[in-house]
Formats: sequence, C-alpha cells, structure tokens
Amino acid sequence: MTIVPTLRAVDEATSVDKSVAGLGRRAKAASFRLGLAATEQRNAALVGAARMLEASSSLILSGNSVDVARAKRDGAPDAVIDRLRLSEARIVAMADGLRSVADLPDPLGEVVAGWSRPNGIAISKVRVPLGVVAVIYENRPNVTSDAFGLCIKSGNAAFLRGSSGALDTNIAIVAALRSGLKEASLPADAVVLVEDTSHESAKEFMRLRESIDLLVPRGGPSLIASIIENATVPYVIDGDGNCHLYVDADADLEMALSLLVNGKTQRPSVCNALESLVVHEAAATAFLPMVVRGLVGVELVGDVRAREICGDAIGPAMPDDFSREFLDLKLSVAVVDSIDDAIDHVRRNGTGHTEVICTRSLRSAERFIREVDAAAVMVNASSRFTDGEMFGFGAEIGISTQKLHARGPMGLRELTTTKYVVRGDGQIRS
Amino acid sequence: MTIVPTLRAVDEATSVDKSVAGLGRRAKAASFRLGLAATEQRNAALVGAARMLEASSSLILSGNSVDVARAKRDGAPDAVIDRLRLSEARIVAMADGLRSVADLPDPLGEVVAGWSRPNGIAISKVRVPLGVVAVIYENRPNVTSDAFGLCIKSGNAAFLRGSSGALDTNIAIVAALRSGLKEASLPADAVVLVEDTSHESAKEFMRLRESIDLLVPRGGPSLIASIIENATVPYVIDGDGNCHLYVDADADLEMALSLLVNGKTQRPSVCNALESLVVHEAAATAFLPMVVRGLVGVELVGDVRAREICGDAIGPAMPDDFSREFLDLKLSVAVVDSIDDAIDHVRRNGTGHTEVICTRSLRSAERFIREVDAAAVMVNASSRFTDGEMFGFGAEIGISTQKLHARGPMGLRELTTTKYVVRGDGQIRS
Repeated sequence: MTIVPTLRAVDEATSVDKSVAGLGRRAKAASFRLGLAATEQRNAALVGAARMLEASSSLILSGNSVDVARAKRDGAPDAVIDRLRLSEARIVAMADGLRSVADLPDPLGEVVAGWSRPNGIAISKVRVPLGVVAVIYENRPNVTSDAFGLCIKSGNAAFLRGSSGALDTNIAIVAALRSGLKEASLPADAVVLVEDTSHESAKEFMRLRESIDLLVPRGGPSLIASIIENATVPYVIDGDGNCHLYVDADADLEMALSLLVNGKTQRPSVCNALESLVVHEAAATAFLPMVVRGLVGVELVGDVRAREICGDAIGPAMPDDFSREFLDLKLSVAVVDSIDDAIDHVRRNGTGHTEVICTRSLRSAERFIREVDAAAVMVNASSRFTDGEMFGFGAEIGISTQKLHARGPMGLRELTTTKYVVRGDGQIRS
Repeated sequence: MTIVPTLRAVDEATSVDKSVAGLGRRAKAASFRLGLAATEQRNAALVGAARMLEASSSLILSGNSVDVARAKRDGAPDAVIDRLRLSEARIVAMADGLRSVADLPDPLGEVVAGWSRPNGIAISKVRVPLGVVAVIYENRPNVTSDAFGLCIKSGNAAFLRGSSGALDTNIAIVAALRSGLKEASLPADAVVLVEDTSHESAKEFMRLRESIDLLVPRGGPSLIASIIENATVPYVIDGDGNCHLYVDADADLEMALSLLVNGKTQRPSVCNALESLVVHEAAATAFLPMVVRGLVGVELVGDVRAREICGDAIGPAMPDDFSREFLDLKLSVAVVDSIDDAIDHVRRNGTGHTEVICTRSLRSAERFIREVDAAAVMVNASSRFTDGEMFGFGAEIGISTQKLHARGPMGLRELTTTKYVVRGDGQIRS
C-alpha cells in the first residue's frame, strides 16, 4: 500500500484554507454531499478510515511521540501523559471503534411521525443530519476518531478542535480519517481539524454560526463556562454529575451498600459516579456503620447527624462539599428526616445528571421518580448505568445535562434533527 | 363576584420580590408544584383563568386605554396601535384560546420509548415539563395569555417579559391569570411578569440560567440578534422565513400560480409567506406573464432573465433582494437552468423555514425533498401550511428555524423535555 503518498495528497488538499472560518466553510460544503450519501457509503468510509488508521500507525505514533515529549518537558502529570500516549493497541482500539459504529443502525431517514390533514396534505417528520457538528475537546486523541465515527455515521461533517497538547497526534489521525473518506468517494472535508489552538481561535470557533449546526464540548468546567459565556452557535452541554444515592427508610441495606460501592468506587473520575449519600434517619444508625466498613479507602465527610452516628470515621463536611463533584474517592453524607427532605436536598445540590433511590416502598419509588428533576432517575440500580453503551445506544458522544434537544446519554440519534415533508396536490390555505 | 378584591390580593402577593432575579426564583419554586399537578388541575387553571379574563375585562380595558393613549402620544403607527388595542371581543377570544388549550391532549407523562437491557434493568424515556419557560415579546397583549396557556398546559411556569408599550395591559391580564391559578389551588407564581422593561432588565432576563429552562423570543430581527449575542439561557429561535416557491420545468402552471398567489398575498406579513419565486427556464416564458397578470398589486423584482421575458413589469432586483424577507406585497423572481441551480439558489438564500416545489416530476420532487435543508419542505402545497394549527398541533408558541430541540411549528410537545427512568433490583455495573 502507498500510504505515505496518499496522506501527503490529503495534506496538500487541507492546505487550501486552514483559517477557522475557512475550515468551517469547507466542512459545510462537504456536509451537503455527506448528508445525501447512502448508508453503505458512509459505512464504507468508516471501515476505510479504520483500515487507514491501522495502516498509518507509525505516522500516528511518531506524531504522538512529539506530543508526549512536549508534555513531559512541560512537566505534565503522569495521568495526563497516560491519556495522551498512544500505542499500537490503542490505535487498533480506535479502529475497532469505527468498525463498531459502522455496524450500528443508520439513524437517518427514520420517519419519526406521519399523518394527514383534513385538506388532504400528508405530513411526515423525517430524521436528517444536522449538517456540521463541531467538537471541542482536551488531550484525548481517541476523541478525534470517536467523534469522527459518530458524525460520519449520522451524516454530519465533523469540525474538530482538540488541544494544543495533542496537535501532532491529531493531525496524523485526521489525515488517516480523511483518506478513508476519499477512498469511499466522500469529500475529505467531511472531517477538518483546527490546527490553530490559540484562545482567540477557540472563541472564533464558538461563534461560527454560519458553519456550525451543533457544538459538543468535551471538557471540564472552565471550557463549559467559556462556552456558556461566549458561544453563539447552538450547543449541548455535557456537564457535571453531582449524583446522589438516597437510601430510604426501609431500603435493603445490603443492596444499598452494593449500589454505593459500585457508584462510588468502580470509576470515581467519571460524571456518573456517586458523589453524595443521603440516608433516611430510620436507616442511618444501621447503614452508616456498614458504609464506613464497606467503603475502605474512601474519604467520608458528613453533616452533624452522620457524624453523631459514626464519630470521626466521617469528617466534617465543608459548606460546599454537598454541592460539588469530587471525582475522586471521597463522598459526602447527609442524614434526613423524610423522603421530602431527601428530594429537597437533591433539588438544592444536584446537577440534573443521575439520582438514585434505594427503597422497597412503591410510594417512595414513585415519588422520587416524579419529583426529582434529572436526566436519569433510578430505582435500585447503579448510577453508573447512565451511559450510552449501558443504555444500548452502541456509542455515545456525551451525556447531556441540559433539557433542550437531548437529555442524558447522547447517541447517534441525538446528532440528528428532523425535517417536515409536506406532500399535496395543490392545496392552498383559505 | 368580587373580582376587584381578588385582583388586589394577588397584586399584594406579587409585591414580594419584583426584581428580575426574584421573579425567576418565584417562577422556579412554582414550577415544581405545577409540574406535579394532575392534568385536570392544570386544565381547571386554564378554564378558571379564561373566566377571570372575561370577568376582569373592564380592568384590562382600562389598563389598555393607558397603553393606547401613550402609544398615540408617542406617534406610534396605526398598525402598532391596532395590534395593541384590546376590545371586549378580543378579550373573549383570548379566553376562548385558553379553553381550547385546556381541551388539547396533555403532552406530559407520555412514554416516548422504553426497553429492557440484558442485565434486567428497565429503561423508559418519559415526557416531563421543562420547568420555567420564559417568553420575551413585543406589543401584542394576546401573547400574554397565549403563552400562559401553552406553558401551564405543558406543566411549565411562564416567566413573561412584554414590552413597555403594553405594560399596563399586561399587568391587568396577568393579575387575572394569577387568580385563575389560585382558584385551581395552583401557585399564582406559575405566571410572573417582568414590569421593569429597561434594556438592562432584558439582558438580565436572558442570562438567568438558574431560573430559566427555555427562552422563546417572539419578535423581530433586532431582538433575535440581541438574544444570540447576549443570552446564556437555552433558547429556541423563531426566525425569518425567506420562503421560496420553485416552479419546475413541467409544473402545472395553474397550480403554481395558485400556490404563488396564496403564499404571497394571503397574509404577506408572516414568516411562512412566500418571498421569492424561482422558475425553471423551460417554464419561465409561459409562467412569468401569468405571474404578472395574477399578482396584481404585488411589486415584482427580478434577475436579468426574468426581466427579459416580462420587461418593466418586473423591476430590477437589488443584490440583497433575493436574501431578505419583504414581509410585504413584494416578490423577487429568478430564472434558473435546472433543478440543481434552483436547489443551489435556495441553499444560498433561504433561511431554513419553508421551501416549496411545484412539479409533476417524481424525481424532481424527491430530489427537492432530500436536498433542500429547511424546517419544512413542501411538494405542491402552500408555504402557508407551516403553522401549528395547520399541522394539527392545536396551538403554537412559534416556528423554530433552528435545528436543535425543535424545528418547525412548536406546539405543546416542544415545550417539554424527557427524563430517563431506570428501574432495577440492585443491578450494578461490572
């Protein structure tokens, strides 16, 4: 295979206009052709891109080694370097991810609803691509190919802006992805990468209303705050998860402990991890000592009532400990008088991500479901299930904590919009 | 009936905190109770509010006469004064509007989707209220009760900001609506009105993320531009409609003329009116003279080819005439070589609202449907059908020209979000 010349040819094509606005125009133009491509052609591009990723692994790894060396020189923490560093195996995993997305059902063309009106016009609501989906993200090179896969599968051009720290890696990955598109006779500009990683270019990116149909930020609180303040393009926020487990008066305490241990410790750094335990006073005396014994290695901070039961095994909670994500092996604990107080506690401190009740009471379960306002409300199940894969979506571009457009795990369908198609035979309005 | 004391009591209640932020907090608190109210109770509030509107007509008309006098003193155009002025009949129409909304099906509680996962958890996606819906609008007092009706029906508190020019009218209307809520034992704060109509308060309103779940602007381009620039709350834009009729080579020209006359003249000032005619060259020689004869009283401006056929009956189009809404008895006319050029013309000039093709060709119809990117794409039907009532939604809060959350006419369903409910019996993630 003549990989290197292919990549070079693509790189020459990308040199046409690499300004943020120019990249946006190129992605927009490509999106029209991509949106009309048949399912098979989009799938072929994904499979081809997977093959090109694997075939280009030495180029990608050499770009990655530049980024890793720079990160080390800059004194980046080991965790950051670990997320940044690629290997043959990680590249194969990225390629396999693209093949999996190719195997998913096509979200496009679904007739969401259809009906006729008394005057004889027939209306249908059809699922169509958004156009250009922009993704702004941090130092994880796998997001480059993951976002590409979800966008292409859903008929959208991918307009990517990674971090400066992963730039050499991302350039090499995107070159391979573009080759896959060209092999499938789709426009290479269906994926473009912003190479200017300055703050000014980020702001320009967020305001490119003529090119961007949806912006998905993948990053921490400062990125989200910047989007809210500066973006004029439509966006969906993948926000914080200050997730609670409420243990009701008559809960099965073994089950509650199992949900707590799973939610808190299985992967503490993610948004669907538990951050706070709220216990009904009728269960607290029996349950909290179980928590202290069961959550070994987790720092517990609690309110006065929790500390009365457990003494120094639970430290004093600071005022903001109940309202923030620890994203670490730390848990806040509160004791409440009633389910009303529990719901009120969740309402005041929750971020609308995932809230869990453990109970045997039908009435408590139904009240919690109805009265708690969150993307996912769970009864006797782990908060860790709020996830596109666990929900069965096959893939996920994020978890929306907003209420418009998409709420909860966002799969392929959430990367689409609808169009009304009206068919008549000359009807006019009287 | 003791209307006057009732309204006074409500007015005392509203005096608690009338700052924009304070009103937002009150609406948010009320939204929790409203969102849990049964369908019958929300309907009772609408019917009660309708009765209170009629019973308060003298108070409302006296507030309205203050507004009308002020508008006259300020030299407002007759059209503005006509939209502002209420009468007994208009108040009855507003009340009837609320009763009609009460009769519509409840959008809440609909299970949009539901499935089980291999581990036994059952997931359902349930339609729930957004919370607080904010509406910012201009001098039409009927929007006050229309927006109230749609919000309450969909379980959302209504946070309203009308214009300074209708303030006295709006205060009287909202007092009546609040009485209707209280009669149905719902919190009066489920509707609140911003009485500070300064520019500063508008900006504060658009940035009240802690209180506002959705902002719907009802106004012209300068309001929309201000929302895009300043708003940090989620919004749905009810934007321009630069709607085209494309007359294909083999169109039924009588049908095309009928669609054109209906689209252009039935109500020229609205967003689903036609603004532009695009004609295939094979039909132009026969059709354009029919247009000149058929659209009496409509100013026609066209490109060189249209003018070659019709001479001075079609004036020269200025460069921006093809890209703007006239909202008046004026139409731009272009002649194209092919359906490709027509689709390209629509893509360059359209605003994504409604685009119509008149054709007998199946292939042209299907291409237009697939390739034109708009909220509504129509074949052989009038653009005037893009409307909540015409679509059968029963009521409409606007027509979205954006692609996220809602696209096209927005009825009750578009004022809701969904919540995932996950039921398990202790499942954890492995």
